[in-house]
Formats: sequence, structure tokens, C-alpha cells
Amino acid sequence: MTPTKSIFPLVILMCMNINGISAQIKVKAEDGASGKETKHGTVVTEKLTSAILRDNRIGLDLNRNIKVYLPPDYSDSGKSYPVVYFCHSIFQGPEQIFEDGNLTKLLERGFANGVVKEFILVVGDYTSPTTGSLYENSRATGRWLDYTIEELVPFIDSRFRTLRRADSRALAGEMMGGRGALLLAVQNPDIFSVVYALNPVGVGTGLLPIQAYPNWQKIHQAKSIGDLEGDHISQIFITMSQAFLPNPNRPPFYCDFIMEMETGELKYNATNARKQIDGFSLSNKLDEYAENLGKLRGIAFDWARYDPIQDHVYATQSFSRKLETFGIDHEAEEYRGVYWEENWTENGRFYSRLLPFFARHLVFEVNN
Amino acid sequence: MTPTKSIFPLVILMCMNINGISAQIKVKAEDGASGKETKHGTVVTEKLTSAILRDNRIGLDLNRNIKVYLPPDYSDSGKSYPVVYFCHSIFQGPEQIFEDGNLTKLLERGFANGVVKEFILVVGDYTSPTTGSLYENSRATGRWLDYTIEELVPFIDSRFRTLRRADSRALAGEMMGGRGALLLAVQNPDIFSVVYALNPVGVGTGLLPIQAYPNWQKIHQAKSIGDLEGDHISQIFITMSQAFLPNPNRPPFYCDFIMEMETGELKYNATNARKQIDGFSLSNKLDEYAENLGKLRGIAFDWARYDPIQDHVYATQSFSRKLETFGIDHEAEEYRGVYWEENWTENGRFYSRLLPFFARHLVFEVNN
Amino acid sequence: MTPTKSIFPLVILMCMNINGISAQIKVKAEDGASGKETKHGTVVTEKLTSAILRDNRIGLDLNRNIKVYLPPDYSDSGKSYPVVYFCHSIFQGPEQIFEDGNLTKLLERGFANGVVKEFILVVGDYTSPTTGSLYENSRATGRWLDYTIEELVPFIDSRFRTLRRADSRALAGEMMGGRGALLLAVQNPDIFSVVYALNPVGVGTGLLPIQAYPNWQKIHQAKSIGDLEGDHISQIFITMSQAFLPNPNRPPFYCDFIMEMETGELKYNATNARKQIDGFSLSNKLDEYAENLGKLRGIAFDWARYDPIQDHVYATQSFSRKLETFGIDHEAEEYRGVYWEENWTENGRFYSRLLPFFARHLVFEVNN
Amino acid sequence: MTPTKSIFPLVILMCMNINGISAQIKVKAEDGASGKETKHGTVVTEKLTSAILRDNRIGLDLNRNIKVYLPPDYSDSGKSYPVVYFCHSIFQGPEQIFEDGNLTKLLERGFANGVVKEFILVVGDYTSPTTGSLYENSRATGRWLDYTIEELVPFIDSRFRTLRRADSRALAGEMMGGRGALLLAVQNPDIFSVVYALNPVGVGTGLLPIQAYPNWQKIHQAKSIGDLEGDHISQIFITMSQAFLPNPNRPPFYCDFIMEMETGELKYNATNARKQIDGFSLSNKLDEYAENLGKLRGIAFDWARYDPIQDHVYATQSFSRKLETFGIDHEAEEYRGVYWEENWTENGRFYSRLLPFFARHLVFEVNN
Repeated sequence: MTPTKSIFPLVILMCMNINGISAQIKVKAEDGASGKETKHGTVVTEKLTSAILRDNRIGLDLNRNIKVYLPPDYSDSGKSYPVVYFCHSIFQGPEQIFEDGNLTKLLERGFANGVVKEFILVVGDYTSPTTGSLYENSRATGRWLDYTIEELVPFIDSRFRTLRRADSRALAGEMMGGRGALLLAVQNPDIFSVVYALNPVGVGTGLLPIQAYPNWQKIHQAKSIGDLEGDHISQIFITMSQAFLPNPNRPPFYCDFIMEMETGELKYNATNARKQIDGFSLSNKLDEYAENLGKLRGIAFDWARYDPIQDHVYATQSFSRKLETFGIDHEAEEYRGVYWEENWTENGRFYSRLLPFFARHLVFEVNN
Repeated sequence: MTPTKSIFPLVILMCMNINGISAQIKVKAEDGASGKETKHGTVVTEKLTSAILRDNRIGLDLNRNIKVYLPPDYSDSGKSYPVVYFCHSIFQGPEQIFEDGNLTKLLERGFANGVVKEFILVVGDYTSPTTGSLYENSRATGRWLDYTIEELVPFIDSRFRTLRRADSRALAGEMMGGRGALLLAVQNPDIFSVVYALNPVGVGTGLLPIQAYPNWQKIHQAKSIGDLEGDHISQIFITMSQAFLPNPNRPPFYCDFIMEMETGELKYNATNARKQIDGFSLSNKLDEYAENLGKLRGIAFDWARYDPIQDHVYATQSFSRKLETFGIDHEAEEYRGVYWEENWTENGRFYSRLLPFFARHLVFEVNN
Repeated sequence: MTPTKSIFPLVILMCMNINGISAQIKVKAEDGASGKETKHGTVVTEKLTSAILRDNRIGLDLNRNIKVYLPPDYSDSGKSYPVVYFCHSIFQGPEQIFEDGNLTKLLERGFANGVVKEFILVVGDYTSPTTGSLYENSRATGRWLDYTIEELVPFIDSRFRTLRRADSRALAGEMMGGRGALLLAVQNPDIFSVVYALNPVGVGTGLLPIQAYPNWQKIHQAKSIGDLEGDHISQIFITMSQAFLPNPNRPPFYCDFIMEMETGELKYNATNARKQIDGFSLSNKLDEYAENLGKLRGIAFDWARYDPIQDHVYATQSFSRKLETFGIDHEAEEYRGVYWEENWTENGRFYSRLLPFFARHLVFEVNN
Repeated sequence: MTPTKSIFPLVILMCMNINGISAQIKVKAEDGASGKETKHGTVVTEKLTSAILRDNRIGLDLNRNIKVYLPPDYSDSGKSYPVVYFCHSIFQGPEQIFEDGNLTKLLERGFANGVVKEFILVVGDYTSPTTGSLYENSRATGRWLDYTIEELVPFIDSRFRTLRRADSRALAGEMMGGRGALLLAVQNPDIFSVVYALNPVGVGTGLLPIQAYPNWQKIHQAKSIGDLEGDHISQIFITMSQAFLPNPNRPPFYCDFIMEMETGELKYNATNARKQIDGFSLSNKLDEYAENLGKLRGIAFDWARYDPIQDHVYATQSFSRKLETFGIDHEAEEYRGVYWEENWTENGRFYSRLLPFFARHLVFEVNN
């Protein structure tokens, strides 16, 4: 998974091209233990027919295409493996995660160099006809959290030789998927015990008032989400409104909004805003899961200092401060970089931060 | 001057509409001394034919339309008045500043309520066929600073009853015009003694690397500035490149860039970048004018916390810190607000901050 | 009230002396309407014997010395006046507020110059044998909020010609008193309608984890608050613990702590920490008073950018952001300055920001 | 080197004890390649008599005690090794770096686990009768930079089997030593090619005006540095003044100050301030070494988000931004943590960030 503009359309959306920085980064990789032979695993696609996702108003496809990476020794070892569930972001799907072979390459280099022991990596399918899942449980846009816990995990455990215990299950995710990974972890410490979120979004209040971002005029004029083609932020706000402000009697989007049109003027609706923030922002949910936090073996997240939406930087820092008040140990690194470009380079965040973190916190062998 | 999208196209450019906040702000104005009768002044248009601006490569119109506001008592008093030079921003001109009568209304309410004594307000003409002046001195885009000092000020002093001394001349400006006001002040403490910049830009290094903002691909493909219609940030970067990286042998823009195209790839050029930053950023210029700083009677600037380009917030704070190292007293307020929307409301920044500041620092009467 | 080290001991506490900046600030005051004759009012001291404060464990003196400033025309006009309740900070009392005559001078200059119409200013007595009130309601340290509403306000209304309506009652306060002013306002919109807090503290989560500040070792060794003489931050933390973590069975302080000593080692107690934060931080209390917020006529607060405890800057910004989510209009300015030194200068925050704000929002005349 | 209060007295100085956080961090270390046998190296002490340090006014001891760690295979391999020069901070010396065996343990665990190949680690002696070196070149306080390049490096190369080339020489340092490491690197890319600074200080302008920190009253009353016993910040400011504002005719400290006493009042001296800032702040020095920057193979630094002096956080971020304008690739991570406590834990910054960084960038083998 090398990030390209087609799978990360926020780049275009923000009218920014930050080619400068990444262009000049040419880290010469020399691992402490390089030169080792790299062995190869397999990526398989599994079909899961969801019952839970039937419950939605946006026309979700119930046939989900799950991608599963099986590590090099899987076929011969007969052993059971830990599983990392990777939550992809919006505007992308499992297919794109493996498309260019980069993720596989990083994993196998990590296995070969002793950075981490072998594990299975699963990319659940969180795509939708609109933006893709925000990792919510909503009658309008789908109960994606329930789908993960009640369908995806049992499905994987039933098909593959997995270590069926929280200590050996981890969550990873990028951007919106980072939000998903964190939320699934704090809600289900008996299913997962380790989580690493790369550039998570939706974790707290940002620098600007939330209503500042989308084009409300266009949103209120749109007849379908397609009318906002190219304006991804406005599309995301529609999905958020559908997820957290559902209103079955209000076509075309069957939801209310935090900016409502009243006699031709946009007006801020504080009740809706607070409802949406409470639904979306992880910081506002932590109190509910206070007990769970202490059960996790490892929590980590990181973010790029030069995220063009600086609200992400501010929000993620304050999410970390909130964890602090709960006395919860975690890693929370802010690094030099633009967007998520640092995640997938040769010695990027995935390879040199996430893999060693899993190596330290995940249980790879169980002696019965 | 009520800000509208047509004169502040950055709004559109940033793909953001922050109607929420301003929509709900309805300050009930009750001055300490309200109810006073408001007297009216006049706005006149003066033609100035510039010789200095002849020296440019972008086709500047040498006939400048200067707008001059004469206060209520001007015609009858026979007195001489202090002059405030208002530097307008890019993508606008003197015409728009007075268009809706709001600026005049705020001034005259301030005079009537004793907030400040009467003064003349001049809006020099800094428009150009491209974005408008960045308040630079450049062979390529015009010597706008020289034009102001050598042509505009003498012209005004020759036509109107002005107090011809630094103590009675002030600069004001908004956004790019705020940059202009500050730069003209620190360069010419013998001409001006007081300055108030509203949301100045170009004052220092921002949060993101400077090359992050424009669409370099499009810039390098463009044949004329018109090819970037609607992409104001890219247009501004072309003007900046022309102003600070002129190259007479390089059509169509006759300048170099901080991101250059090399064999089909964009490459950061640090030499160009530093040259442009040194030319544009006021923080980098202060050392040169250290002596001048202490001669000014009053320096103030302010900015909105919710500027969608948070780099402005960071840069202006660090400009203030730089002044601090020089031991220079100044006001530097960050207020709750989005963009410049707070500047022109009934009790906004112009009325309740800028006018009282001028009242405190400008000399209104000279006894000979 | 000119701030001096004796009444603002945080200066010493922080091991900092920031004489540089203030030393060089010499604003030449020239009001728009200066030169007017200044008339004088009177400061009287009233004794109030509190029944509510009887309920405490730290030995509060029930005889409170209230200072009341009556404006110049009070004695002759026969009119009723608005009342501003000024909440002083910890480690000071009403006596010190008027001690050097500066506050009176600023008020009377403001009245003379038409900045604001005349009002009565009351300084309730929030002193205690320890640090002074944190503006809490606590069985352990006193029900100071109840004391204000149920005793102080009726007492003032019964003794002086006041406008007995919320529209004509305002709260002001500095530092801990700023917290008090804001809290009293959001809890009692039917008593007060306008509030201006100067450098409020205790409004939200800071930059550092809260347990970072006091000397826990010393706190756990102390036999009385006097054992922490000179260490004001540790003293404040004891008062906070007493206010929000009372424990009647635990001498000498009759409270629990967020860092507890367990077998010789300090251990963070998240339950205690969250309880204390929920009790102290205004941001965490806003949800409870959501309805009230909309009833207030004016909310303002400001803070110094160079507060040596940068947590205050961060927390107050985030308090403003929280108000934003409620759609509540307010002023929230961050200014260049160190601590509270800017509040009481000739054209400082009190004179040029707070007084005009009250002029705009408070009702000075009631027509029956 | 486990940090303790005795070797990091800033803790005491800041009146803060942040035991809470670190107390609860108990990372269970499980390396990807754990269980390997750990081999042991040796620490030797070498005496270097400096000629260069003779030139000083603070009574430096010319006999320097250099500590050299030789890796496990050094004695038997006959090979030459890369050398890492570790720059210690103020108020400590080489002795304390090795005192508790922790540094050695982390190094040898890193070697055993294949995190990095073996290298020699040298701790030069930067102690002084006052605070220790600020890594300056000063006639007053010692030419420490020259001492390092002209005496220390040749001395080590002459005594040990070292790889005598920039590619195989790295600098590391903590706090003030981090400043030293970065400065030595940018000045000498032909001697060193890789640098990792842990929590560097003195890299740029902070959040508060620089004069805010020390107790100037006490400084101007002191007869010797001993009169400021316990007030480390004031002591550091005296050393800074001596280093960057030397004045041979002004006892007792033979320097000027940024706050001078004039007729009993402290007055800010902008000329002195700027001279001191230009001498101390690395950001202000980068222009001078622009050419050198591109020659380095690897630059990294990191810092704790919860540094009680938040100026360090701000300054280090802006130092990174400055490097960005030069187009210089580097790592710049901000992590969750208080002070430097995270550096020396089992999987702390030294072990899991610095060692892998050296593994990636340093040349360990040279084929002739």
C-alpha cells in the first residue's frame, strides 16, 4: 500500500500538493540485521455475508470481501497465529491496501529482520456506496462496530489457525480506520488487547469550530451524495450526519445537520452539534469505557505534524491528554511529516514504529 | 466595507464556508456615549499617475485611483488633520473598501461617540492585473513601497490639509495590506509613527512548510495567471515568485520557483525558498530595521484564532515574539473569530480596537 | 490595585521575575475624550456575618469584610445603580484590591471619559485561613457559591440603591476569581447577566498532566498547611483536594489526593484525579449548565500569552472552544503580556477591555 | 544512567515532581528477538590534558576525565569501530553517565538483539566549576567546541581502534548536550555525519520572552555563582551571559546581562538580548552552516510533550521548521512524556529510537 492520490483523495480536496518534502526524503535503509532472506506469505480473499449490515438506509452491499494476509510459515507450521485487524480509511477498501504489494513487502521484511514475529493481518471490508464506514453503530449507515465483533472476528477465527484470545489480537488502522481501531479496542478489551492507530481522525475537538469545514450551502442543495462529487469533506459531513443525526423522515439524506437552513439562512444548531460531536469524538466517549482502558496491553497512536488539517494534530494531542487523566499508559508520537506519507516508506511509521510496538505487546506464542 | 465572498476569495479557495459562527453573532451595540448625533464626511477619488510603477513586467496601469475619506468637519474647520493610510488586501481595490458604506459608518460613529478625533483616511490603489500588490519593491511586479513613500504620501499632502509629520500619520491594513502597513511603518518611522494591522499575513514562518500550499503541477503547466483562475493560493505564489525570485529570461512568468520541475518531478529548491522567505516574511526583515522600531509611537496587530490557514496564527504570534526580543512595546491580540469577519461588525476590531488605538497614539493637534 | 509580589505570590512560587517587559511599557495615555474632570466616589466596608460558611472544616471566620465602591454621583443622584461583583483571587482579599487606589482611579477615569456609566463595585470577602476560596461549594472548605448567591447579593441589595435584576448585575474576577465569576454566571443567569474574567484559572485541562505541579512528597509529609509555607502551588493543591476530595476521617487535611502514597511510593489515583478535575474544571461543568449559557447577555474572558504556567493559556483557549460547541457568543482574547500585569495599567485590560464590555452589555437605566 | 534527582536538578529547580506518570509506566519488554545472550564490554577512563581550555576565566580544570565504553567484541575482534560521542548535560559529568550501569545495559541489550551493531561510545568531559559547558566557544567560559574537535576526537582516534571517517562518527546528547551534539554536527560534517539529540535545549526562541526565567534581582546581588545555590536557572543564565556577553572589566562574573540594573530598576537591554540569543540559539546559527547541513547522513532529535518548560517544546518544533526551509531531511519526534524520563527506560527513546537511528545511518564496516 503505497499512498497515491487515488486512494487518498483528501490531498486533492484540500487543494494542496506537498510533493516537496516527501520528494527529497531518500532514507537509505540499513537494518541492524539486514541481508536476511525474505520469505513470502499469501493474500487470500474471503467472502463474508453480513446479517448485521442489513440494517441500514444507504444500500450497503451485504457481501463483504475480506482480505487476509497469511505469513510465510503459515502453510507449513501448523501453528496458530496472532491476528492484526487493519481498519482501512474512508474512500478506500481492502483491495487497495494490498494493491501495490508494499504492505506485504514491509511485513515480510519485518519478519525476516526479526523486527516482529509472524502474524496474520486481516483487512475487513468497510466500504459503502458513500464514503465508507466511520466505524459507527448506526441504524442509518450500518452497525459497523457490531459487524466487526459479532461477524468478522468469529469468521476469521473459524477459517484460520488463529490464537483465539485478546492477548493475541491487535487492531491497527489509518486515519478514519485509526478512529475505528481505537474505538473497537476501548469497547472490546476482551476481544483485542493491543492497538496502534496511524493518524487517527475523529478523536476530539479540533482547532476550528467543527461547522467551519463543509460547504453547507451545497449540502442543503444536494439531492444525492453524488452532487458533492469531489468535495470529500462535505461528503464526510453527510455521512457523519447520517450516522449520528439520523432522521428517517427527512429525505434525501435521512438526517439532520449541525447547520440548518432557516428561511434562507444557515443557522448553527447547538443540540445537533453536540449530539454529533458526542457520537463522533472518541474523547467524549472515554468516560464510558474508563474500566476497559486499564485492560488493554498496549495503546499507541501517532500523527504527522504537518497535517494540512491542523485540527487533527490538536485533537489527537488532547485525546492523549484525556488518556493521561485516566492514568493510562500509551504511546503518542507526533512526527515530522505531511499527512500519512511517512507511514508506508521503507523505514516509515508502519515498519519502524507499529511493527516493533506489536512485537513488544502482542502475545505470539501460547503454551497450553 | 462589509466583507463578502467576492472581495475575499480566499474563502472559496479554501473550500470552506464558516457561516455558522458569524451567523449567530448579534452583538447589541450600546456605546458608553451612544445616542450622539452622527455627522457625515465625504469620499473623494483622486487620480495619481505613477512614474515609479512604470518599472514592472506585469503590465501595471500607471493611473492609480486613490480614495480619500474627508471627515465631517474638514470642509468647514480650516484645520489640518492626521492621515491614516489604509492598505487594502489582494484581490480587492479602493473601490470595494467604500462600496457598501460600512467603513464610513464605523468611522463616523467613532467620531460622534468620542472614540477617536477626526482624521483623513486614504486608500492607496494597490491593484494589479494579477493578484494586487504584496507590498514589495520589485523590478518585476512593481516598486509598491517606493510608490507609497515617494508618490502617494507627497500627493496626499499636496492636495489636502494634512498634518505633515510622522506623529500624525498612521498606517492601517488588512491581511496582505496588514503586511504592507507593518512593513511601511518599520521602514519609514520618519513618515509614519503608528500602525495597526488587522490579520496581517506574510509576517513569518507558518505551521506547514511553505511549499505545501500551492498546486505546483498546475503552476508549472500554466501559460498565464488566468490558467489558475479560482486557485487563488497558486496565483498568490506566482506573484510571490515574481516579486522575490524574478528571472527576466524565463517566460511566461519571468520568475523561478521554490518547487522546480526536474525531469518530470517536482523538486524543492532550498536556495529559492530561502530567498523567497527572506523577501516575504517580515520576521526575517526585522533585524534590518531594528533601529527604526524604537522610533514608532504605536504598533498593534491582531488576528482571528479560527483562521482556516492556521499558519497565519502561528506566524503572527512568532512575529510578536520577535518584536519582544527587540524590546519593542506593541499590542498583539488573538481573538475568537473566523478570518476577518470580526473586523467590520458594529463593535468589531476596527471600531473597538483600531480606532481607540489610534486615539491613544496618534497626534491630532499640533500647536505651532 | 497595582499588582505587587506580596499579593500575587505565584510570581515567587514560579521562581520567575519577568520585570523586563513591563518595565519598558510606558503607554502614553491619550483618551479620545481626555482632559475631562474626574469626580470621586467612596469605598465603604460592610460586615456580613455568614451562616452558610459555618459549614466547613478549615476554621473560616464567619465575619466577612465586604468592600463596596460607590460611584461619584451615588450620594446625590438618588438613582439606583448596576452592580459589578468583583471576585478576588487566592492569597489576597478585599482590602488589597483597593489598597493603592489604582482600581478607584481607573473606574473614575472611565466614568469621566464616557467609557462606561457609573456602577457600584462590590468585592466580596473570599479569604480563608488557607489559600482563600476556589469558588467551590464544599462541606470541607466552605460553600462559597451559596454564600455569594444567598447571602452576599441579597445583603448588597438590601443596603444600597441597586438595580435588582440580572440585566444590571455583572461579575468580574481575576485568576481564581475569574473562575469564580464564570462559574457564578453560568450557574445563576437569573441573578447575573454579564461576566468578564481576567486571566481565569481552573477552566480546563492544561498542557501538562495535573499531577505534575505540586510537591507530593512534601504534601504527604506535611502536618499542616503551614508546613508548605512558600510553596503556593502545593498549598493550592491541598485546598483543591479538600474541596473536591473531602474525607472526614483523614487528618490532617481531611481529604484524599490524586497522588497517594503507597508503601513509600507515590501512585497516581485516576478515580481521585477525575473527581477533582470534574469538580474544578469549568469545561467539565458546562454540559450541566447548557441551558443557562444562552440566557447571559455577555461573556468575556482574556488571558496573557506569556503566562508562565502555559497550561492556563491552553485551558482557557479550550474553554472558549467548548463554548463554541454550545453556539455561545463570547469574547476570548489572548494578549501580549506576562501574567496579569497588563490588567491594571493605565490603558490595560481592565480599563480598555473590561469597562467597554460592561458598557456594551450591562443595563444601566431601567425605565419603570 | 537512570535519571535521578541528583543528576537532573532542573526537577528541583522547577519546584515540580512529576512522579505520577513515570511511576505507573511498566512496559513489559518483549523484543522481537529477545532471549539472546548478552555479552559485556568495558568502560575505561582516559585522562586528557587540554591546552585549549586553558583559555578561560572561570577556573577550568585542564585535566579532563574521558569515559570510553568499548563494546563486547572490541578486545578480541581486532576490528575498527564507529564512535558515538555522547554530550552530557549541565550539572552532570561522565562519571554519572555510567554510574548505575543502565546505559551499558541498554547498549548491550541492543547489540545482543541485533538492534544495532557494536560501536564505541565516548563521553567527553564538559564539566566546569559552574554549571558545565553550554557547548560554546568563549574566551570567558572555555572553547569547548574547539576542545572537542581539536583535542577530544584526535585523542580518541589515537588511543582506540576507531573508524576514522565522518561516516562512522556520530554525536548524541541530552538536553544541553543535545544542543552540543547538534551544533558540533552542523559545524563539522567532515568529522561527524550522524547526530541524535535527546530533548535538546537552546535550539530556538521559546514561548516566553527569554528574560522571564531567571531571578535578575538575585543575579545582580550575587557576589559569586555560589550565592545562587539551588537556583539553577539563574546559574545557567550567568553561564550564558559569561559565554555570550563577556566583559573582562566587570567583576564578579565578567559579563553583561540582558536585564541590567539602572538606578535601582531592572531594565531590558535589547542589544545584549539579541547578542545572547544569536550566540545561544541554534536556529539563529543555521544560516551560517547551510552548506554543511546537506552533508550530514542523518539528523534526529526528539522531545517530551510534557516538558515543564514548554518553551523547549516550542523551540524544538521551530528548529525543525527551520531545517525544513533548508530542505534538510531529519527526524523530529515529540513524544508523550515528562522531561527526559522516557530516555532511559527499557524500551525508551535511547533504546528504541536512538539505537535504530544509528543502525540505519552510521557506517559500521569499511571495506578497504
